[in-house]
Amino acid sequence: MTAYKLHCFKESGNSYKVALALRIAGIPWEKVDVDYFQGATRQPGWRASVNEMGEVPVLEGDGVKRTQSGAILLHLAQQHDALRVEDSEQAEVLRWILFDNHKFTANLASYRWLRCFAKPQPHDAVLDFMRSRAAAGLDIVNQHLSDREYIVGRRLTVADISLAGYVFYPAGELGFDFANDYPHLDAWMGRIAGNPGWLAPYEMLA
Amino acid sequence: MTAYKLHCFKESGNSYKVALALRIAGIPWEKVDVDYFQGATRQPGWRASVNEMGEVPVLEGDGVKRTQSGAILLHLAQQHDALRVEDSEQAEVLRWILFDNHKFTANLASYRWLRCFAKPQPHDAVLDFMRSRAAAGLDIVNQHLSDREYIVGRRLTVADISLAGYVFYPAGELGFDFANDYPHLDAWMGRIAGNPGWLAPYEMLA
Repeated sequence: MTAYKLHCFKESGNSYKVALALRIAGIPWEKVDVDYFQGATRQPGWRASVNEMGEVPVLEGDGVKRTQSGAILLHLAQQHDALRVEDSEQAEVLRWILFDNHKFTANLASYRWLRCFAKPQPHDAVLDFMRSRAAAGLDIVNQHLSDREYIVGRRLTVADISLAGYVFYPAGELGFDFANDYPHLDAWMGRIAGNPGWLAPYEMLA
Repeated sequence: MTAYKLHCFKESGNSYKVALALRIAGIPWEKVDVDYFQGATRQPGWRASVNEMGEVPVLEGDGVKRTQSGAILLHLAQQHDALRVEDSEQAEVLRWILFDNHKFTANLASYRWLRCFAKPQPHDAVLDFMRSRAAAGLDIVNQHLSDREYIVGRRLTVADISLAGYVFYPAGELGFDFANDYPHLDAWMGRIAGNPGWLAPYEMLA
């Protein structure tokens, strides 16, 4: 089997989710840098040949280009024993990956983006609005983790990896203090970072 | 089999997705009204006993309460022949449901909410920001539908039903003119509305 190719850029936590899954499972992969900041994903040619949704990550392997981090994670969990999800936990893993896409990553990532990378700098009202949405997602995950070590069941699954896509970026980018304000989430991050395959996003995708 | 119970409220397009799937498939269900505007989903008791994510829809049946519209739709597609997804189309259906949750419904629904229901009325900068995000999602779906009748394959699937959750609310609520600005999406809506089981959201969840 040739190595997977991961089309990505280092500021993309959705790309980091896939890289983290591959690395934790010991699956070979190589990076294909996408020049997002120069508009690569908005080019009609890139959309036609790589991803019509205009997004990374794209995971290329076995002649197929797969997109949407959640779909990629669930595919990898089907294909690789190290990431396999028990049948009894499939529905719950899917539910949390959907929640991540709908309410957690969607807001946390957007808030970071607006704080750090958006040009022109957004209006304060927009920052305040997105911060409150991100905080609502953080509250729900922090509460969920108050009496459990992982999102589903008793070990790391792709549900954890999906929700962890953005939390390991620097606190100065995210604009939240997890240790003080979301202690259960902070402890869960420590468990994930304790995995021998773990690297922080800017190391992983450097 | 007793009928499913759908915990919902009529302004919730995520609830409408599930109701539309049930009705198109001819599956019996009954409505359990959730008093969202009086804060029902924010009550600790409701979160503990119905859905910790604080959201509708919740589909109750066979002793299980299922949440996240995307997970519910995929479950119904596994259980009921009328909604069955071909094996060869599973990955693509999942990918579009994730896109819907991440970039389409997430933005279109939020923009409508801010326009119609948010108190206090949001700052214009927030409305402009969310409108541009909603438009980006509409562009991608409209483009995808430019040379096909349905989102995946040649017939209606739960991917269409997911993406259709909010588009059938009144244009005055949504703030977009689909017929003029997103004609392929508008034609696809016509195909969905031609299904004998179709009802508009405020009729379906009245």
